[in-house]
Amino acid sequence: MSVDQTGEERTDTTMEATNLIHRVDKITGHWQPEHLMTVDSSHTLKLAKIQGTFIWHCHPATDEVFYCVSGGPMRLELSTNATSPEHAEEIGADQTVELRVGDIFKVPRGVQHRPIADVETGIMMIEKVGTVNTGDREGHELTTELKGSEV
Amino acid sequence: MSVDQTGEERTDTTMEATNLIHRVDKITGHWQPEHLMTVDSSHTLKLAKIQGTFIWHCHPATDEVFYCVSGGPMRLELSTNATSPEHAEEIGADQTVELRVGDIFKVPRGVQHRPIADVETGIMMIEKVGTVNTGDREGHELTTELKGSEV
Repeated sequence: MSVDQTGEERTDTTMEATNLIHRVDKITGHWQPEHLMTVDSSHTLKLAKIQGTFIWHCHPATDEVFYCVSGGPMRLELSTNATSPEHAEEIGADQTVELRVGDIFKVPRGVQHRPIADVETGIMMIEKVGTVNTGDREGHELTTELKGSEV
Repeated sequence: MSVDQTGEERTDTTMEATNLIHRVDKITGHWQPEHLMTVDSSHTLKLAKIQGTFIWHCHPATDEVFYCVSGGPMRLELSTNATSPEHAEEIGADQTVELRVGDIFKVPRGVQHRPIADVETGIMMIEKVGTVNTGDREGHELTTELKGSEV
């Protein structure tokens, strides 16, 4: 990538594209996001495999983009009037967004949501660095560390 | 999306996913990015169709993610030691990254680059809000306004 003082070429980064389908295929386990890349130190692209129904939660400080890479269809249930996960649990979803392979959707910050996938689905997410998968339910048994270095 | 004081449901946003292939297919013209969505008021997802060879340029203040949606393959030529577009033109590429459909790659901020597509290719880009397509060559005949509202 650059030439150091000895005149030898240093390769600081792998200058290769990543195929999302191949990369997400390697993931084992569900609901355990892996780091793909960081953009401008502020946002992270993550990959995960999901299956089943996740818990209601929201991210008060970040939008969260979902992109369906493989498998699917999956659904994003939104409870746009809910003020907490418990409230969402009580009043349920008022919007359901279906994502098939190639579909993208942004859950706005602060909106209670839960992903559901009847079959195993590979997804990419875009959100702020440091975002925890279970949002305002940090500490839940499904809360997990991001796999791979974030920055 | 929410209930107003008359008790009627207001739909503020279309709660539907966007299919990247269908959306990029609607674009006419090359090298003219269209707004897809904004994430956290800081980053924009854009779609474009490209064909041919773009000009050397860099974005001093933002990383730029390229994702190949349709068509392809395309190439990103990088001139990682170049200090200006003119310098890149002179010394040429020292890295070439090929992207086929489903491939993603980040051009780090400040790196001189130019996309090349022998056949018409649909791409998604992720970069900071306000990023100009020709980067540090703003004012070039290929410089264009982003189509669609950014925020």
